Amino acid sequence: MPDNSQVAGRKADHIRINLEADVQSGVTTGLERYRFLNEALPDLNLAEIDLSQELFGRTVRAPILISSMTGGTQEAGEINRRLAEAAQFHGIAMGLGSQRAAIEHPELADSFQVRKFAPDILLLANLGAVQLNYRYGTAECQRAVELAEADALILHLNALQEALQPEGETQFKGLLHKIEAVCKALSVPVIVKEVGWGFSAATARRLAQAGVAAIDVAGAGGTSWSQVEMYRIADPRQARVAAAFRHWGVPTADSILEVKSGAPDLLVFASGGLRDGLDIAKSIALGARLGGMAGPFLKAAAVSTEETIGAVDEIRQELQICMFAAGAGSLEQLARTRLIRTE
Amino acid sequence: MPDNSQVAGRKADHIRINLEADVQSGVTTGLERYRFLNEALPDLNLAEIDLSQELFGRTVRAPILISSMTGGTQEAGEINRRLAEAAQFHGIAMGLGSQRAAIEHPELADSFQVRKFAPDILLLANLGAVQLNYRYGTAECQRAVELAEADALILHLNALQEALQPEGETQFKGLLHKIEAVCKALSVPVIVKEVGWGFSAATARRLAQAGVAAIDVAGAGGTSWSQVEMYRIADPRQARVAAAFRHWGVPTADSILEVKSGAPDLLVFASGGLRDGLDIAKSIALGARLGGMAGPFLKAAAVSTEETIGAVDEIRQELQICMFAAGAGSLEQLARTRLIRTE
Amino acid sequence: MPDNSQVAGRKADHIRINLEADVQSGVTTGLERYRFLNEALPDLNLAEIDLSQELFGRTVRAPILISSMTGGTQEAGEINRRLAEAAQFHGIAMGLGSQRAAIEHPELADSFQVRKFAPDILLLANLGAVQLNYRYGTAECQRAVELAEADALILHLNALQEALQPEGETQFKGLLHKIEAVCKALSVPVIVKEVGWGFSAATARRLAQAGVAAIDVAGAGGTSWSQVEMYRIADPRQARVAAAFRHWGVPTADSILEVKSGAPDLLVFASGGLRDGLDIAKSIALGARLGGMAGPFLKAAAVSTEETIGAVDEIRQELQICMFAAGAGSLEQLARTRLIRTE
Amino acid sequence: MPDNSQVAGRKADHIRINLEADVQSGVTTGLERYRFLNEALPDLNLAEIDLSQELFGRTVRAPILISSMTGGTQEAGEINRRLAEAAQFHGIAMGLGSQRAAIEHPELADSFQVRKFAPDILLLANLGAVQLNYRYGTAECQRAVELAEADALILHLNALQEALQPEGETQFKGLLHKIEAVCKALSVPVIVKEVGWGFSAATARRLAQAGVAAIDVAGAGGTSWSQVEMYRIADPRQARVAAAFRHWGVPTADSILEVKSGAPDLLVFASGGLRDGLDIAKSIALGARLGGMAGPFLKAAAVSTEETIGAVDEIRQELQICMFAAGAGSLEQLARTRLIRTE
Ligand SMILES: Cc1cc2nc3c(=O)[nH]c(=O)nc-3n(C[C@H](O)[C@H](O)[C@H](O)COP(=O)(O)O)c2cc1C
Ligand SMILES: Cc1cc2nc3c(=O)[nH]c(=O)nc-3n(C[C@H](O)[C@H](O)[C@H](O)COP(=O)(O)O)c2cc1C
Ligand SMILES: Cc1cc2nc3c(=O)[nH]c(=O)nc-3n(C[C@H](O)[C@H](O)[C@H](O)COP(=O)(O)O)c2cc1C
Ligand SMILES: Cc1cc2nc3c(=O)[nH]c(=O)nc-3n(C[C@H](O)[C@H](O)[C@H](O)COP(=O)(O)O)c2cc1C
Repeated sequence: MPDNSQVAGRKADHIRINLEADVQSGVTTGLERYRFLNEALPDLNLAEIDLSQELFGRTVRAPILISSMTGGTQEAGEINRRLAEAAQFHGIAMGLGSQRAAIEHPELADSFQVRKFAPDILLLANLGAVQLNYRYGTAECQRAVELAEADALILHLNALQEALQPEGETQFKGLLHKIEAVCKALSVPVIVKEVGWGFSAATARRLAQAGVAAIDVAGAGGTSWSQVEMYRIADPRQARVAAAFRHWGVPTADSILEVKSGAPDLLVFASGGLRDGLDIAKSIALGARLGGMAGPFLKAAAVSTEETIGAVDEIRQELQICMFAAGAGSLEQLARTRLIRTE
Repeated sequence: MPDNSQVAGRKADHIRINLEADVQSGVTTGLERYRFLNEALPDLNLAEIDLSQELFGRTVRAPILISSMTGGTQEAGEINRRLAEAAQFHGIAMGLGSQRAAIEHPELADSFQVRKFAPDILLLANLGAVQLNYRYGTAECQRAVELAEADALILHLNALQEALQPEGETQFKGLLHKIEAVCKALSVPVIVKEVGWGFSAATARRLAQAGVAAIDVAGAGGTSWSQVEMYRIADPRQARVAAAFRHWGVPTADSILEVKSGAPDLLVFASGGLRDGLDIAKSIALGARLGGMAGPFLKAAAVSTEETIGAVDEIRQELQICMFAAGAGSLEQLARTRLIRTE
Repeated sequence: MPDNSQVAGRKADHIRINLEADVQSGVTTGLERYRFLNEALPDLNLAEIDLSQELFGRTVRAPILISSMTGGTQEAGEINRRLAEAAQFHGIAMGLGSQRAAIEHPELADSFQVRKFAPDILLLANLGAVQLNYRYGTAECQRAVELAEADALILHLNALQEALQPEGETQFKGLLHKIEAVCKALSVPVIVKEVGWGFSAATARRLAQAGVAAIDVAGAGGTSWSQVEMYRIADPRQARVAAAFRHWGVPTADSILEVKSGAPDLLVFASGGLRDGLDIAKSIALGARLGGMAGPFLKAAAVSTEETIGAVDEIRQELQICMFAAGAGSLEQLARTRLIRTE
Repeated sequence: MPDNSQVAGRKADHIRINLEADVQSGVTTGLERYRFLNEALPDLNLAEIDLSQELFGRTVRAPILISSMTGGTQEAGEINRRLAEAAQFHGIAMGLGSQRAAIEHPELADSFQVRKFAPDILLLANLGAVQLNYRYGTAECQRAVELAEADALILHLNALQEALQPEGETQFKGLLHKIEAVCKALSVPVIVKEVGWGFSAATARRLAQAGVAAIDVAGAGGTSWSQVEMYRIADPRQARVAAAFRHWGVPTADSILEVKSGAPDLLVFASGGLRDGLDIAKSIALGARLGGMAGPFLKAAAVSTEETIGAVDEIRQELQICMFAAGAGSLEQLARTRLIRTE
């Protein structure tokens, strides 16, 4: 089991590599193949378009999610604060990075405690699902939720990433039942997400039956964690093994459709390579309820809260104008808007 | 409400940006996917091919429209004069730019009064449809027609452009009924056009029911007004919002088919990215009756009347030779000519 | 009517431009989309593969045609001699360039009289079909055949080229009946060909009914005569009119299929952009009986007879090896070999 | 008949050209069009994934084949030793290069005798099938197997390569019956392979009926032997004949499907352009049982045994991780895993 400083070092590596290197997936999200029909005559006033919805007991004022990223170091705590302040400002949702460090080293909990900066937002705790096969049970999950004062818990699945890490934890056998047990016992809903390779219909169906409340597809087309690991690996042969997976994964657009077909009644969040408000709008028209982004917000939060507020605002405006030009006055109407598939 | 000098400044910006910057849409017209079958043995003499038709009581000698562009300043008046002289020379149709400036400041009317240079052409007045939601009614529409001695009135729809302008007018709610009222009361037919993002079948149907006489699709693939506005915006974040829409819109070829399917009996004009006589010929084979161009004629009119006459002549020749090599001796035959769709 | 020196000057221009400028069509032949299945175990000995067939009373030893190109000047006569010597050496077919010059100026006939260098080949006379609408009848056609001691007459159709030439002859009305009359009265079979833009099924059907013995598709994908004319035109605007047709025409592969579907019993020759023996093999598998090339043989003949013999040999070898690796021991088997359509 | 030093010179040429020049086919394997669905929640422990299978009486510990390459010179013997040591280390299969030299010159047999370095591997003898039409019968085949202590004999088909070699042996007529006779009489199973142009369904069916035990498709997309021969040919015209076949062949992915459809019960090996463990995994999901590579292992063996062991290890890891992330715990499960076909 890696000790605390190892995990912290890996987390710092991840942030540095994400800020500096080209960690883009070799595949595209597939969203570029979809296009809205222009509505030349929207029966709408732009200023009245309604971006809000209720989710897990919170009002989310725009369907934007700051995806799970960080925590566990002082620098990470500062980034989390800026992200939370921007989320509060805009009334959007935010995910925390994996809280394993805080579970094992309570003195690090602080870097995840952003509720004080964001009293009203939909806040999502986060743990690696595979930990349930190694050392954690419902108690640790509950602790993660409570220390963050979160509204729901994300369990992330990252099998390929673990397999590419020298120190990776790759015993995934029987994990579904552990997830099912957490869903039953936890005080808040459980969301399952990938980290950039998406879900198939079959896996979505299994997870829905296990009782998860939502799936965040975290599909291929954005940050590629095989590329991130590639940059971390010193041995050239092992680095080439990682590089061989640059094109791996279910593209985000495809994965939204996979999950909708495998689990039609499940709540779906979209992430993985979304880069502007039009991508979020397309994701919603394909069946998602929130659109998450990691990389773009990390870059902004590395600067300041104001920069992050601006970054969210840019995306919110793009989304609102897109809805206007597509003739959708609310998220429900957007969800029913037809997309054209090109090529 | 922007005052006169503001509107005039914006108009001057638009012309300068259109002449100097790359304002090309990120999508293509879709016309490049269509091809005529070569007719190796046309039963025709080239010189006898008939390009003429009757439209709104005028004989249009070639199915070419100089699209709505300008007016309201002295420079614009000069450009309008050159465009009108070329239109008269070739017997083609011409649209004026938005006449709002002239309605509000009668001393500017002069720059739109081209009938004296073009006594016989099909001349189209122009106003922004959204003005009907702010300050105008049938009276102002009638005035625009009369001061221009126009044969019909174009109401242009530009919802996305308004949304991207800091000073934009974005209350589009209920506009269809206002358009319907104008169609009923005006002394001349009403044409509705976009400005570069095209129409869907559903909107075409609604407009046909409201009584419009024609739709000019002004589809995507040519001048992109989100790009034009992007160049006008100083704030980088707002400029990025505009840039996000570079791929927006229904490509011109698709939009012709959309409008024909939504409103089979409506007169259709094609514009948006048409660049030569073959593009016009394809548009007619897809269902349009006129092919309009803005950018190319603006560049010629910035030089002289002769240059503009030459520019029209080039396109007219390409169209005529294309009809010859496709075996179509008249516009009716061209409209019935089969296109091959390639990919 | 252009006088002799004008026609000769134009011919010299054509040869010079073809040798020096990029006159490639903007479209491809479409043959690149077809592929033979490799036959890993051909039941064949390479040396025994039979490339010969009977055509118009001659034994053609390989299905290669040196396409119609030139004549009418001393230089052209020299090129014709080299082409004829290579054709005789390999026992392949050869077309002469348009013989109009020789009809009007008998002293130029010499440059077309290659029978003395090629006593056994299938030799094809050539005239522009449109001349039948201006000054020629069956008598002139008969004279062209006789002075060349040809086995058949090619009438070429080049409507688009004529339309792009300042001096072009563009009265094509009623031409089909003139062709029909020639077919009835001439002592040898009549072949109709294009010059690089191909045929539709409908036109092939009309020509078959008129009594032509074969169609040479001369489709798009090789030499583009709109490009050739573009280089000849001094006025930039007129040159742009020509340039607009760079993508015109039915690609050669498509045109073979068009002609086969419109006139299933007609003999088909393929030409237009064929560049190696594999292209000829594919053309035959699509339904053609001969594959013609112009540009590549012109370049070789500009050097010497030996170079031309070598150029033919290269193509013949490619064809034979292709048949071996596709498992076809004769042209009949090749005609029945299945092609895979890719992309 | 080429004498020994000629054959040895050609072999040395081949190795040098393969190591130094770009001999890549003009087509791709087609495997890039297939993609696994990510399995976000594999019910597997990575370390327990089983890559082994029984083949021809041997346990093959990973479905990797070092494709037939060399032998017959001292340098080649050294390469064979390194390849064999790496194969033994990993428990994978290995093919020898054509043993014709050793049959005709017993003093060269040594360079093929790798059983001493690899007592447990699946080892495959190799002869050119066309030799059965010239000088060999079952006796020589038996001798090749015995001198190599091989578990099976590969007969390779390379009709196109022979046709492109000045010294090529191109009498393939009647060869199927000779192969059938060998299949009947030989003490070990017979595998037929191509050398980079693949098989059609029809030929696979004929070979299955003749009694072969397996087909190695050796399809197009990797090493192109027409390119290799092109580099060997001095005469530019003959080199161009070879170059014309750069796009020849059935792409490896297509050829696997062809063979499975023509001979559903036959054992299929995949090779031709496979470059990593994901390519092998895809080949197995398409129907193959082993994935072979030549070029990549040649480059490693030119360095050392350790380098070769490392090269195999890299591919084995990629395959294992790919199976993990695709949710396949064994080769049987991998064979039943669905691939997505993209374009
Ligand atoms: C620096 C960084 C750290 C991340 N850490 C986590 C994490 O701890 N838990 C998690 O579920 N996902 C994590 N992710 C994955 C993201 O939540 C998201 O699913 C993925 O990056 C795709 O989004 P993107 O393309 O917008 O970057 C991280 C992403 C980044 C860029
Ligand atoms: C400089 C300029 C000014 C324009 N002004 C107007 C206008 O006032 N009213 C209008 O309906 N369209 C206006 N348009 C849009 C054009 O009429 C046309 O719909 C659009 O530019 C697409 O055509 P294009 O790709 O050929 O430029 C303008 C276009 C240009 C280039
Ligand atoms: C220099 C040159 C002159 C030609 N002259 C004639 C001609 O007189 N008559 C004719 O039917 N075609 C003529 N052609 C057209 C060719 O016969 C052929 O149809 C066309 O060039 C397509 O073949 P390619 O792509 O192999 O060049 C000529 C072609 C070239 C290159
Ligand atoms: C240097 C070299 C020598 C080869 N020699 C033989 C041979 O003797 N017998 C044979 O069946 N295949 C031979 N091959 C072909 C390979 O076995 C294989 O089918 C082909 O190269 C495709 O694989 P690749 O794309 O991974 O290189 C040879 C390949 C190479 C690169």
